Amino acid sequence: MSLSLHPSAEPAEPPVPASGDVPSRRFSLALRLPLRHAGPRQVVLRGQCLGRPGAPWLVVAGGISAGRHLAAHAGDPSPGWWQAQVGPGKAVDTLRWRVLSLDWLGADGALDVPLDSADQADAVAAALDALAAPRIRAFIGASYGAMVGLQFAARHGPRLGELVAISGAHRPHPYASAWRALQRRVLALGRDQAAAGQALSLARQLAMLAYRTPEEFAERFDRPPVIREGRARVAAEAYLQARGDAYAARFPSTAFLRLSESIDLHRVDPREVRVPVTVVGVQQDRLVPLSDLQALVEALPGPARLQVLRSRYGHDAFLKEDAAISAVLARALSGEAKA
Amino acid sequence: MSLSLHPSAEPAEPPVPASGDVPSRRFSLALRLPLRHAGPRQVVLRGQCLGRPGAPWLVVAGGISAGRHLAAHAGDPSPGWWQAQVGPGKAVDTLRWRVLSLDWLGADGALDVPLDSADQADAVAAALDALAAPRIRAFIGASYGAMVGLQFAARHGPRLGELVAISGAHRPHPYASAWRALQRRVLALGRDQAAAGQALSLARQLAMLAYRTPEEFAERFDRPPVIREGRARVAAEAYLQARGDAYAARFPSTAFLRLSESIDLHRVDPREVRVPVTVVGVQQDRLVPLSDLQALVEALPGPARLQVLRSRYGHDAFLKEDAAISAVLARALSGEAKA
Repeated sequence: MSLSLHPSAEPAEPPVPASGDVPSRRFSLALRLPLRHAGPRQVVLRGQCLGRPGAPWLVVAGGISAGRHLAAHAGDPSPGWWQAQVGPGKAVDTLRWRVLSLDWLGADGALDVPLDSADQADAVAAALDALAAPRIRAFIGASYGAMVGLQFAARHGPRLGELVAISGAHRPHPYASAWRALQRRVLALGRDQAAAGQALSLARQLAMLAYRTPEEFAERFDRPPVIREGRARVAAEAYLQARGDAYAARFPSTAFLRLSESIDLHRVDPREVRVPVTVVGVQQDRLVPLSDLQALVEALPGPARLQVLRSRYGHDAFLKEDAAISAVLARALSGEAKA
Repeated sequence: MSLSLHPSAEPAEPPVPASGDVPSRRFSLALRLPLRHAGPRQVVLRGQCLGRPGAPWLVVAGGISAGRHLAAHAGDPSPGWWQAQVGPGKAVDTLRWRVLSLDWLGADGALDVPLDSADQADAVAAALDALAAPRIRAFIGASYGAMVGLQFAARHGPRLGELVAISGAHRPHPYASAWRALQRRVLALGRDQAAAGQALSLARQLAMLAYRTPEEFAERFDRPPVIREGRARVAAEAYLQARGDAYAARFPSTAFLRLSESIDLHRVDPREVRVPVTVVGVQQDRLVPLSDLQALVEALPGPARLQVLRSRYGHDAFLKEDAAISAVLARALSGEAKA
């Protein structure tokens, strides 16, 4: 079950080249997948392999809005969502590992059915089958990716060396679920009224508020409102609007709806996760309270540790606290975490 | 400035009668008021006097959705918003005090201009003028009412004995302002799309989430979602929807918009508040963080104390923690708070 769990089992590290050029491959897989709530469906998996062929496999997965493009490489020089962590010589070292990443099921907006984190975990397993990768050294998941990682560990444990779950638990917190439900109601309001773009922008702005913290907003936006066109505009309003609009321009609203829902449908019995797990939580996270992560770690039957970060970026710490996250990943991937 | 600040100066307390019958009077005042942002306007003040004529005056004010009807009385037997605190023999004892309460400027939805907490404070002063009440013993305000109380103390200090400010500070927190701004955007989305009722219901649901706490939701709504008509419904969703719909049925959306905005326009320089102040905060309040209340109390030049409550009801503690709030009020009104 635990292949290459120790540093001694890893291949010797090649020197970091001056160029960041590592092999990359993108692929699409059309397959029939039995979905937990929606039954068997024809789906398309869009994935990417980054790093040296033949190296041990890692899976890296992020939030519902993050996809397969982790970091710039020769095949796609645009910045990826985990630019700071993935690449030659970085914490997720593409000279040392072969890294699989996927666009989430539903991310293209074409699959308008209830999706579960279990479906996503099965999609990862199907992709690994197609790549003839029987086992992965580690699944590194943040936010929704952590939930899917827990599902993967519960459903496909024998294929997994260890799990790093950052800011995601075995269940969504009921308060956070209520929050997301209201975002989806905003979406429904806009959709019913043919204002889908505005509504998605607004739903994303509401989501962002929960990703961040009062501390950050107090530092950045402590100015009185201005009155324009007879309405008060608060200091954070233009920033949120710009971010929401940019999101709405690139993300289908069906994808937002179904992936948001998928977070709330997520449930894993921690007792079914038997691989070593590093759980990472952020004290200021308003969506994933530490108490849920503590409950998770206490219920895990295998080796497990909880590492707590402090960050004014709250739930978004995995995207912002580059040094702290690098240290977490380096430790987990060195095998030291299980010592 | 400080009339009847000590218990000895109060009239002897009459015995509590078996009946809850105390004199009540409702009034409307049409007057021209210079508004801070909108200039001079013709407005209608709707108020209520409850309690023994001739007794010392109190002013009691609550959140943006609370009005002049504090508690049931012979003239209106329906429950008021502070039923637990106001009445014969209660913390705000209508046998001992004469209690003035007002519907907020803008609450009828007819005044569609930016409103400021300073406007509300001036409206209270105008009502007191009309009642020939030169001074009030105490201003007791909760939430928006605390903000207006601080403004009243800053603008009309010589008329005020002391202030009790519950869950409201000298400024809105920037994060809470961003939150309310998004609620107003939901309203705008609905208004533009002729779905004003749905949008107001949704905005209110978003507001409620901030009034309450994750702890309460975890206790009440820790069940998996159900899938109905192809959509996941989380456990809190029906509750929030019912509360939002009930609110939308009774509250004009213009009133919600303008009073919500008014919270964000609120700013008081604590140095201008020279009366004794009891500030009450709730550790779990997600809208009014204790750090802002601490800053307020530190900046007040007169006698001031901060009393911290713990409540799973967060910002709504003043409506829910009857015993703790009674104790706070009893202490303040006994004069003991300034000892």
